[in-house]
Amino acid sequence: MTSQDFGIRDGEVEVELPAKTDAGLYFIGRIRTPWKERRDCPKNARESDAVCTIELDPRWAAGLQDLATCSHIILLYWMDQSRRNLVLQVPAHYGVQRGTFALRSPARPNPIAMSVVKLLGIDGNKLSVVGLDCLDGTPLLDIKPYFASTDSVPEATVGWHRRKG
Amino acid sequence: MTSQDFGIRDGEVEVELPAKTDAGLYFIGRIRTPWKERRDCPKNARESDAVCTIELDPRWAAGLQDLATCSHIILLYWMDQSRRNLVLQVPAHYGVQRGTFALRSPARPNPIAMSVVKLLGIDGNKLSVVGLDCLDGTPLLDIKPYFASTDSVPEATVGWHRRKG
Repeated sequence: MTSQDFGIRDGEVEVELPAKTDAGLYFIGRIRTPWKERRDCPKNARESDAVCTIELDPRWAAGLQDLATCSHIILLYWMDQSRRNLVLQVPAHYGVQRGTFALRSPARPNPIAMSVVKLLGIDGNKLSVVGLDCLDGTPLLDIKPYFASTDSVPEATVGWHRRKG
Repeated sequence: MTSQDFGIRDGEVEVELPAKTDAGLYFIGRIRTPWKERRDCPKNARESDAVCTIELDPRWAAGLQDLATCSHIILLYWMDQSRRNLVLQVPAHYGVQRGTFALRSPARPNPIAMSVVKLLGIDGNKLSVVGLDCLDGTPLLDIKPYFASTDSVPEATVGWHRRKG
């Protein structure tokens, strides 16, 4: 990966970051994927059916109890190579200026990514999942059960995206 | 709120936290809700149709561009009063021991909550939304567009929850 990948483009706007952070995160594991460089990653998670592995630190492994009964889970992970000071950005694959909070770009004040993945199985502290698009070695922040009752909104729309098509 | 609300119960298991955190978060705003104490909060977000307000810090307000075209958004926020060292816990309303990662409890190594909410409107740096259940003043971490294509899985099941009913 080169720094160029994360450089600023025409139409992008930075703000000054706060002088200090307000809370601290623990990396609780790592995500193992087939993608070693950013250009190899699928554009979004539905583009790939690659099986990826979540390696949870043994410290936390007891917390996996009952999780195998879930068909789908939510993963939160840390996009540790992303810029945090962009409020307007121009994603390469759209070529149009958008607000950071209207995008799923990793560049955001807190570069926490959220993915819904299919859980294939759990073996000790390792989970096999399908539905990721992140770099190999990405730090894991959280695992949650996916509840269709509160998390699934099939009729949801993203106007700027729909209009583009 | 009393410390008792967050005390340990029979069947709950703690681990030693890592000596230090690995990354830092910025609080980018606050969530305003009608609920001032934990006991007043709805058990889950579908229990309430209260309109809540997201107050984004002006520093980040330009990042809201294009967001108003979204019918639903994802909010990440920080459950700053939660224990971080529980791997097995016994939620009061279930009364059964479960693994932390099989629960949506705020008590987890990184107490980041994720809610899918309906976006009613945006006025300057304030967003009106429906679908939250958190305390008034909760720190905001991120706002993302909700894409049904990757985020909605209507057929997802949580076995331990279904069996209980």
